[in-house]
Amino acid sequence: MIIDCHGHYTTAPPALEQWRNRQIAGLSDPSVAPSPADLRISDDELRESIASHQLKRMVERGIDLTIFSPRASFMAHHIGDFATSSAWASICNQLCHRISRLFPDHFAGAAMLPQSPAADPATCIPELERCVIDYGFVGINLNPDPSGGHWKAPPLSDRSWYPIYEKMVEHRIPAMIHVSTSCNPCFHTTGAHYLNADTTAFMQCLTSDLFKDFPTLKFVIPHGGGAVPYHWGRFRGLAQELKKPPLREHLLKNVFFDTCVYHQPGIDLLTRVIPIDNIVFASEMIGAVRGIDPETSCYYDDTKRYIEAAPLARADRARIYEGNARRVYPRLDAQLRAKGR
Amino acid sequence: MIIDCHGHYTTAPPALEQWRNRQIAGLSDPSVAPSPADLRISDDELRESIASHQLKRMVERGIDLTIFSPRASFMAHHIGDFATSSAWASICNQLCHRISRLFPDHFAGAAMLPQSPAADPATCIPELERCVIDYGFVGINLNPDPSGGHWKAPPLSDRSWYPIYEKMVEHRIPAMIHVSTSCNPCFHTTGAHYLNADTTAFMQCLTSDLFKDFPTLKFVIPHGGGAVPYHWGRFRGLAQELKKPPLREHLLKNVFFDTCVYHQPGIDLLTRVIPIDNIVFASEMIGAVRGIDPETSCYYDDTKRYIEAAPLARADRARIYEGNARRVYPRLDAQLRAKGR
Repeated sequence: MIIDCHGHYTTAPPALEQWRNRQIAGLSDPSVAPSPADLRISDDELRESIASHQLKRMVERGIDLTIFSPRASFMAHHIGDFATSSAWASICNQLCHRISRLFPDHFAGAAMLPQSPAADPATCIPELERCVIDYGFVGINLNPDPSGGHWKAPPLSDRSWYPIYEKMVEHRIPAMIHVSTSCNPCFHTTGAHYLNADTTAFMQCLTSDLFKDFPTLKFVIPHGGGAVPYHWGRFRGLAQELKKPPLREHLLKNVFFDTCVYHQPGIDLLTRVIPIDNIVFASEMIGAVRGIDPETSCYYDDTKRYIEAAPLARADRARIYEGNARRVYPRLDAQLRAKGR
Repeated sequence: MIIDCHGHYTTAPPALEQWRNRQIAGLSDPSVAPSPADLRISDDELRESIASHQLKRMVERGIDLTIFSPRASFMAHHIGDFATSSAWASICNQLCHRISRLFPDHFAGAAMLPQSPAADPATCIPELERCVIDYGFVGINLNPDPSGGHWKAPPLSDRSWYPIYEKMVEHRIPAMIHVSTSCNPCFHTTGAHYLNADTTAFMQCLTSDLFKDFPTLKFVIPHGGGAVPYHWGRFRGLAQELKKPPLREHLLKNVFFDTCVYHQPGIDLLTRVIPIDNIVFASEMIGAVRGIDPETSCYYDDTKRYIEAAPLARADRARIYEGNARRVYPRLDAQLRAKGR
């Protein structure tokens, strides 16, 4: 089977964005603030929003299952305070939960956390556990920069993040390290901030001994690892200068890269440089780059085409498509096995 | 001939750093602040610092000439105010000027600017013109983030940068877009901040119409363009969504990538994806990654080896080594021609 590890609910009915806009307006005028119950989206609306978009493309492309989380750019953890993020994350995660119940063969949930710039990351744990225990989610998205492009949180190696990591290890869930929208005019959200965050997170791991403290912790670095595979020699050399072990030993039991790289040469580099066991298939469809590439007449984000065309052994392709994801997301593996898949 | 477009004076005699430390101490205790005349470095010391380091390696590797600027991580524009940066840039540029006079066949200068977070970029023009007119420098380094990792300056498309661009066009000098040390604990300087800045600067150009206002302005994006070539499909797709012209037309008359990518697969990707006319040879030797790669037993930063091994036609290799640099740095070309080179 083919598992896409990186999908967001980018096609939610407009009522969701309207609720969020009212929530934001409520920050300055509490009289217009909505309650969670004000959001009403029927199952039929949810079905339609998926069946005619993500699921349609999945079927066209031959993707069996997507690990599905709330829209990354809409997390916007920098808005309001913990209560704001808490209400918003709760609503967004519930929708992904409903999608995973409506299409149980095709979607598994991953949680957005109610992060907020001034809040202790530990405040996210109740929502994290609700998603994992009550909803059956198989992973989380962790935002290393809740300030939205101002980078005011400490690095991922800081002990303030440890309560999250303890819960990840306890529940055997990985985190995709994924920022949200940039409110810093220097950084275009999907063209700079996302890729920068991927590179930054990897380097925060490299300079630290985080995985000595958490030997089974697993991070997925999205968007093909930002700049990392392209500069793999630089990172190997920097690790050497910093007297760290070789990267395979130092990071590659814990860090995985997805395949959200939207052209053939990029995927060819990724699969040439990064050990196959550290690559998980993903497309982030429908996401940042929705168009058709005039050079190929195919969707930029149809990453399966690049994997198919890359010079890979059949068994390696299967690991990228399925085996690695089952290893990185053991709760997903358990759910699939329980269904005989 | 082979021109290395990206070298910094990382091996300056210790007196330089001592002067800088006194300057920084003087910010809180003016009684210890040094005057420029307090810095005394003899020609012999300068010769030795180059002959036994950069020039030695250049000869070993067969590099004829390096475009040489002050040490990037030491620019530290976030320290002090404009007067601080002004005195520091002046001293650092003078040293590079002296190097270019001591080794006129092997080094051409590029200027550090006296940028400062709160200062108008136009304040840099006197130093820029001194370097170009009096010293014969052939380019500048422009820091898109003088705040040192806090990204508080406006994007490069902002009109506040235009006075610099006007002078660049007038004097026919390109800018290498190069940040300095990161004082934000999220960003490792050479492992994250440098690469992020490269990606960020490219995207700032992509989302703007800067090169409509300055059709002959030229930027060199160092470190192989950060994440850009690896994600070239993403950038093509984003340009399409933003209704910009194709990247070749929109940016590639003005934007060039250097070859500071420290492994073979990275250089292979760069030369496969980016038009040859937009690639300029560089190594940033002696810089961020100084070690020997155990996989090849060669220096990571010996980028000529990767260019030699890349599947390139001889004429294309010559353009990367020399032809493109002469086009991007026309003042260098003129100096070389005047010497019959």
